[in-house]
Amino acid sequence: MESQNVSFRVAREDLVTAVAWVARNLPTKPTQPVLRAMLITADDEGLELAGYDYEVSTRVRLSAEVSQPGRIAVAGKLLSEITGTLPNKPVDFRIDGSKVLVTCGSSRFELPSIPLDDYPSLPKLPESTGSINAKLFTEAVSQVAAAAGKDDSLPMLTGVNMEITGNSINLAATDRFRLALRTFEWDSKDPELNAKLLIPAKTLLENARSLDTGINDPIDIAVGTGEQVGREGLFGIHTDNRETTTRLLDADFPNIAPLLPKEHTAMASVEISPLVDAIRRVSLVADRNAQVILQFSEGQVILSAGGSDAGHAEETLPCAFVGKDLTIAFNPGYLKDGLSVVPTPRAVFGFTEPSRPAIMIPEPEEFPEADERGVFQTPETYFTYLLMPVRLPG
Amino acid sequence: MESQNVSFRVAREDLVTAVAWVARNLPTKPTQPVLRAMLITADDEGLELAGYDYEVSTRVRLSAEVSQPGRIAVAGKLLSEITGTLPNKPVDFRIDGSKVLVTCGSSRFELPSIPLDDYPSLPKLPESTGSINAKLFTEAVSQVAAAAGKDDSLPMLTGVNMEITGNSINLAATDRFRLALRTFEWDSKDPELNAKLLIPAKTLLENARSLDTGINDPIDIAVGTGEQVGREGLFGIHTDNRETTTRLLDADFPNIAPLLPKEHTAMASVEISPLVDAIRRVSLVADRNAQVILQFSEGQVILSAGGSDAGHAEETLPCAFVGKDLTIAFNPGYLKDGLSVVPTPRAVFGFTEPSRPAIMIPEPEEFPEADERGVFQTPETYFTYLLMPVRLPG
Repeated sequence: MESQNVSFRVAREDLVTAVAWVARNLPTKPTQPVLRAMLITADDEGLELAGYDYEVSTRVRLSAEVSQPGRIAVAGKLLSEITGTLPNKPVDFRIDGSKVLVTCGSSRFELPSIPLDDYPSLPKLPESTGSINAKLFTEAVSQVAAAAGKDDSLPMLTGVNMEITGNSINLAATDRFRLALRTFEWDSKDPELNAKLLIPAKTLLENARSLDTGINDPIDIAVGTGEQVGREGLFGIHTDNRETTTRLLDADFPNIAPLLPKEHTAMASVEISPLVDAIRRVSLVADRNAQVILQFSEGQVILSAGGSDAGHAEETLPCAFVGKDLTIAFNPGYLKDGLSVVPTPRAVFGFTEPSRPAIMIPEPEEFPEADERGVFQTPETYFTYLLMPVRLPG
Repeated sequence: MESQNVSFRVAREDLVTAVAWVARNLPTKPTQPVLRAMLITADDEGLELAGYDYEVSTRVRLSAEVSQPGRIAVAGKLLSEITGTLPNKPVDFRIDGSKVLVTCGSSRFELPSIPLDDYPSLPKLPESTGSINAKLFTEAVSQVAAAAGKDDSLPMLTGVNMEITGNSINLAATDRFRLALRTFEWDSKDPELNAKLLIPAKTLLENARSLDTGINDPIDIAVGTGEQVGREGLFGIHTDNRETTTRLLDADFPNIAPLLPKEHTAMASVEISPLVDAIRRVSLVADRNAQVILQFSEGQVILSAGGSDAGHAEETLPCAFVGKDLTIAFNPGYLKDGLSVVPTPRAVFGFTEPSRPAIMIPEPEEFPEADERGVFQTPETYFTYLLMPVRLPG
């Protein structure tokens, strides 16, 4: 497929966007030098740009005037820097021996052509398994990925666990300090499908955020079929002109069901925006073992932090509260992370004891009422953020 | 002056701006812990906020409702973080034993009061020596400070040299690779004044950029009088409600006059904006000994860079050029620094040899003409950026 004469012309804006998207996924310090390459294939239908690092593959198509079809490969991140600075004129590519010539207006670049003898085969996108609204998918992934671990020595915690049962998908992630769980519906091609995938959270989040599609357009998701599903498999996303595949994590996601409390001794409903502001303020004086203490009682929550060298801070907010008065302490960062992905104006908290995990959920239609034992059932919800408290001082 | 009962109320916006300005000048890692303090003095006329690190002192006045005059001191950078997050309501300060209580809306902070026993006396602002338009001063300082050295082991190169002769001021700075020189007029109170000050460039630039005044208002400059002028002296800037003093550098600025070429064998005039864009583009493929080569000939300049692993780039720009054809190479960063402070749409270059410094000046009223020897005199100018070339490859 590599040919002596390749030549095409492409619109600058289309090129910049496509090159930047592929380059972003290219490794900065590749294990094999050839992996810094961006592959540009020119054919009768235009261009395909592609990159791969054995974990993630990206492919994007764009239109171009192709005079001589063929394939070229150049350093992808450099090409992205170059195209980003080009004037807004058509960009011409041409092979000249071992060089790739790029010209645009009065600018002319000669880039070394990267030989592709050692370049790995890009994985094939599995057949589409179903489709989902892009905005919903991005929201769900963002809500869950926030709780994933960043420590590569615990690989099973760096993933988002995706469980597909027919038309229903559960996403979950945890770093042991918090856990996020989201349920949503999608259009599965196979209503009997059962699949379980552990997808690297960082990649999944980047892919979801960079979907090149109107926010209400559907995207295709491919989880492979048959033996492809699971550990040996790939997770693929396909929009109109972009494709990515991600290699799944070879690890077992922990069983999280037993961790979720089903009953609560107290529940609170707090407006998120002033709560986040107050957390930000009081945690300015928090110690190194940063913690924010929340004292819930009827009608109010008192936030406080500090008490040592840097001083002490306190703030009172109105809050709907039912159940036994409670004082509980959280890591302010984890608390803000959770509040930032609850999609309703108010967050509802469910507590048991100050030493046991609390849950945070979107505002349900009806605020729960206690049963005869004074116990609240967890309301049905599509999103749960479970947060471990930290030990109260003293 | 320290009193048991201090109490005042201040508008949040005024407080935020004033605290941020003083805090910015406070040391992050002070040599003496007490220097992290911000001093807040409440008197009949409102508040004075002050900070000092033995090099730079800052003072700002703002209005406040003072119930109990006196002085408090708290960690300045922390106070700045706190005030930045406060809701837009009046802020109350009160001393309570060894604590400073800050309350605003439902937020309440207890900050440790910093004892001022070891706090140094702030230097007194010297009497005003003259005044200058704020916009002009900021422009001049920005133009010159760009060329100052950043290496503290060569202290004389980290300063901006200010020479005052009556109503005229010369500013100069150099890091040995480039040199910037700016002349402007001001209103000196003493038309016979002769003073020479070496002012730390970083501080001068920060002060000039943070002038809290309409850009066409005059600011007062104080260089001290009598024995205060010079090495033992201070440089002060005074606007309506802000004062800063900066300790002068105890070093001799090198004699730069012999470095400035007075005659040129070639001169060029290039539009700055496309030139900067072209430098940015071609230098993407520059080697580690980054250099951009400029080939001047009649009507055009060809920029080029690279030639090694990353590739080669070339761009042609139109340019007015008179004199002998010339190929010269520069560090692209230093070249862009200079172009960014030439205030006219076109920059005029004066060259002698590819190995000798070139000058860059604002566009003069008339483009110079060669004398009978084919030599050009440097046009009269208020700003000169002198740039050392780098050695041409090969």
